Amino acid sequence: MLGRMLIRDAAERDWAAIWPFMRRIVAAGETFSWDRDIDEAAAKQRWFAAPPGRTFVAVDGDGTVLGTAVSGPNHEGPASHVATASFMVDPDHFGRGAGRALGSHVLDQAKADGFRAMQFNAVVETNVRAVALWQSLGMEVVATLPEAFRHPSEGYVGLHVMYRLL
Amino acid sequence: MLGRMLIRDAAERDWAAIWPFMRRIVAAGETFSWDRDIDEAAAKQRWFAAPPGRTFVAVDGDGTVLGTAVSGPNHEGPASHVATASFMVDPDHFGRGAGRALGSHVLDQAKADGFRAMQFNAVVETNVRAVALWQSLGMEVVATLPEAFRHPSEGYVGLHVMYRLL
Repeated sequence: MLGRMLIRDAAERDWAAIWPFMRRIVAAGETFSWDRDIDEAAAKQRWFAAPPGRTFVAVDGDGTVLGTAVSGPNHEGPASHVATASFMVDPDHFGRGAGRALGSHVLDQAKADGFRAMQFNAVVETNVRAVALWQSLGMEVVATLPEAFRHPSEGYVGLHVMYRLL
Repeated sequence: MLGRMLIRDAAERDWAAIWPFMRRIVAAGETFSWDRDIDEAAAKQRWFAAPPGRTFVAVDGDGTVLGTAVSGPNHEGPASHVATASFMVDPDHFGRGAGRALGSHVLDQAKADGFRAMQFNAVVETNVRAVALWQSLGMEVVATLPEAFRHPSEGYVGLHVMYRLL
């Protein structure tokens, strides 16, 4: 039986469930603009952002972590009212709606926190599932930066900047 | 007599000349997406970026620092071949070409360093002088993010993402 999915704040103890699929996603080099061999401590520090940053996990009815997101201000000062976010869904749990649930929650929370807009800085254009998902949540491709991402099999591809007012 | 302008790598000793105009520019809140009251240590750490980051100053024939720039990778890993840069020119020395000289140098150096493109993430659309300058150096406005910057007198204005291949 597929338990009901829940989005909740991530806790320190969730890291042990997050890191294995995060490492796998980052090492694949197909979707994230991070060093592919980032070490665990650096990844953890990045993902568990200091407030006002927020970190979430999607868990199923059994408590299994399906995916995670981090959100916070994209810039500071006069631009601190625009949020940004990153998402990782365990490839073993694709297709269960964790990405959509995380995205929807992050957008709602950002609006509740007083942000006026959400910006994704670097969505790989070949990651068509993610692009379509974010578009379905109201994010628009406002620019595609040519050759900005070196895909391991596709070569140089574009990075989308996606944006929406909240 | 107006001495010949020179662009060179910034040295630790240049900070004392940089910080007064940097503080003034950031405090004005019209062009930079930084906390307007950023403290000196944080600003210095940000501006003197670790390698492969580079920091430059424009100096006149008397050795006066007219402006400064910092450049480095905009992202990591599969996107580390796109550079970004930030520029500050002392308002007391506007109009002497320091911004253009710094911009041209940063673009040339990034290309020499093997970067394939340059991206500016947040150029305030009301900073029309800077926008025109970057356009004259081949940077294109690829997106304008609506309401992404709160200008102290103009209210919410757009932030340009500017980009060019090198």
